[in-house]
Amino acid sequence: MQLLKDRILKDGNIAPGGVLKVDSFLNHQVDVSLLNEIGKEFKRLFSDVKVDKILTIEASGIGIACIAAQYFDVPVVFAKKAKSKNIEGGVFSSKIQSFTYGKTYDVMVSVKFLKPDENVLVIDDFLASGKAVLGLIDIVEQAGAKIAGVGIVIEKSFQDGGRVLREKGINLKSLAVIKSMDDDGNLEFED
Amino acid sequence: MQLLKDRILKDGNIAPGGVLKVDSFLNHQVDVSLLNEIGKEFKRLFSDVKVDKILTIEASGIGIACIAAQYFDVPVVFAKKAKSKNIEGGVFSSKIQSFTYGKTYDVMVSVKFLKPDENVLVIDDFLASGKAVLGLIDIVEQAGAKIAGVGIVIEKSFQDGGRVLREKGINLKSLAVIKSMDDDGNLEFED
Repeated sequence: MQLLKDRILKDGNIAPGGVLKVDSFLNHQVDVSLLNEIGKEFKRLFSDVKVDKILTIEASGIGIACIAAQYFDVPVVFAKKAKSKNIEGGVFSSKIQSFTYGKTYDVMVSVKFLKPDENVLVIDDFLASGKAVLGLIDIVEQAGAKIAGVGIVIEKSFQDGGRVLREKGINLKSLAVIKSMDDDGNLEFED
Repeated sequence: MQLLKDRILKDGNIAPGGVLKVDSFLNHQVDVSLLNEIGKEFKRLFSDVKVDKILTIEASGIGIACIAAQYFDVPVVFAKKAKSKNIEGGVFSSKIQSFTYGKTYDVMVSVKFLKPDENVLVIDDFLASGKAVLGLIDIVEQAGAKIAGVGIVIEKSFQDGGRVLREKGINLKSLAVIKSMDDDGNLEFED
């Protein structure tokens, strides 16, 4: 998606430690016009797939998923990272190791909101090691639901997540795929 | 907002401890069509106010704010609850006591995304004690920006937050205001 790649080159920054910062338009400040273009592109890429529900994970995935859901006309479910008083009863849960936050945490979805007959499109902002998406897939499988596909805004193909998902036969579509980046600010996309 | 009140009566549940659960349509599973009606209503209520940016807090506020932002044609900034590798440099921060999570935490916004000349509309899903919104207002004031207003989806008027905000002169608009609720499932709205 050229608009997105251009925006990453224009406003993205590479922070020490291999973190691509897109916080001026994607995951802290949010350019909702760009999210609309992202949502339209996900709809185009998954137009031949039956989607009953979009599943994402708090927090950065929520805005992306909600805007995209307008083009699919389906509800969003966001997996939660902490057990609050607001989740009661049964939950599907999975352990995720976060690179960004440097710790392991549980994500959970109430059993009320994933059903065996549903086709679930997983959407998230980043795919690197793939741990978050694999956790969401685990949850969908626990529910006996089907993975319609995985839509990612920015994939880092120099990490393992994309390969692992494709080897599992997942229908993965990433809007911008970064082949390499370094601390000097060089960033290269896959074709 | 009658559509919202009807939905709360139909799909909301009162959990023990005074927690109104709206997780089937607002803060775990999300009905994006309803969010669009909510966004339109916020735009109608704040149509006479200059809004340059919408500020909310992760996680439940993000979807509401992003959908609403489409009607205001402005960016969203969401305050973060934990310091991750993705926030560097200076931040505005404020301490918030959470009823839902039973603990105190810091929320922060990068200094890059709030400027002194901006008119900021604060949006959140719930207003009860007002702690979260007061934390966001504190952050806006630290930035020297102006509060254009506060838009809340569900206010509990039997708690103090609404009164405190109105006494501060804040332009507060709540789409559904709950006067009382009890563990037997009785729920009454303000007129």
